[in-house]
Amino acid sequence: MAYLSSKEISELNHLYKINLVNSCSGYKSANLIGTKSTGGITNVAVFSSVIHLGSEPPLLGFILRPTTVPRNTYKNIIDTGVYTINHINEVILEDAHHTSAKYDQSISEFNMTNLEEEYLSDFEAPFVKNTPIKLGMRYLEEYDIKANGTKMVIGKIEHLHFNDELLRDDGFLNLSGASVATINGLDGYCIPNLKKRFPYQRPKNP
Amino acid sequence: MAYLSSKEISELNHLYKINLVNSCSGYKSANLIGTKSTGGITNVAVFSSVIHLGSEPPLLGFILRPTTVPRNTYKNIIDTGVYTINHINEVILEDAHHTSAKYDQSISEFNMTNLEEEYLSDFEAPFVKNTPIKLGMRYLEEYDIKANGTKMVIGKIEHLHFNDELLRDDGFLNLSGASVATINGLDGYCIPNLKKRFPYQRPKNP
Repeated sequence: MAYLSSKEISELNHLYKINLVNSCSGYKSANLIGTKSTGGITNVAVFSSVIHLGSEPPLLGFILRPTTVPRNTYKNIIDTGVYTINHINEVILEDAHHTSAKYDQSISEFNMTNLEEEYLSDFEAPFVKNTPIKLGMRYLEEYDIKANGTKMVIGKIEHLHFNDELLRDDGFLNLSGASVATINGLDGYCIPNLKKRFPYQRPKNP
Repeated sequence: MAYLSSKEISELNHLYKINLVNSCSGYKSANLIGTKSTGGITNVAVFSSVIHLGSEPPLLGFILRPTTVPRNTYKNIIDTGVYTINHINEVILEDAHHTSAKYDQSISEFNMTNLEEEYLSDFEAPFVKNTPIKLGMRYLEEYDIKANGTKMVIGKIEHLHFNDELLRDDGFLNLSGASVATINGLDGYCIPNLKKRFPYQRPKNP
């Protein structure tokens, strides 16, 4: 096996280092976060850091990089209190990844890609049309991570839309039924197939 | 599409709700966290919440459920300051998932499964043998999430071990080269294949 110490990692060149360390946590979620500014300009951006925090209440978090440069998604969330999380699937991979380009806030990524905005259940923030799972989120709180200046934003699921055929009898949503993507590193995409579900595990007798 | 409001989600029965909401964030990382108590008893447990926080310094976080019941992993990390993160691959899926069973702290999951502990680079915490990527982590800080009583634990990568053949020229580790798993919901596992990497995206002309 190859080995790198933290000192060796810190001495790598920037691009090599971010490719390597971004691969180290394992597969990541692949989502588009949709927001709208108070001036009515929509924004949609790819995020690979959305995580499950709890089911009662239903909470998700995501990580934002330091806010020393303008972050349209964050500003819109703080200004309006709402955002959407939309699952990226195989059909929209290329347009979804393109939203990582740094556009000025006056330009909506919906106008620069084939992604289409959609409004559902009287929710103010834009959903992304044709995505298989769409969540309407309300901002709850945030934590500033001292160790590196990132921020964890936490929101509550207020609206949940999903393709009916993904649902199993026990509430499980089979993501692979809609070709949902997962992200490897900064720029690698996979479309997994469900291999196995395991039953609830109880201790064996020692 | 099916639709549920937050009120409808809160009224679902417990098991249905946790299956549904756990599927909502997208695919998750699949890792085994290894620790050792001050008394020398090892512990290994499956986690699906390890996330990348930053590359300089190289930081990862993970989420712990409320500490109202004993959490061996957390206690060992606080007591010793160190832990390992090991990627779950296809070969060890069943044993890895079994570590979700609630064993007493006096029993090591390494003794109740075919998972084997391994010590590398003079690091005190146990790695899991035969896993394709292994990280030696040092505890840095933690955040108590007010919204639901969970905790985010943040650590720095001190040691990085990985199968040589996963590495691409630009530092990217191809997780699918080692059949690394990803998790859907609470108990669904997939073994993805890398489909596509995209180049760095620059804005198009409006």
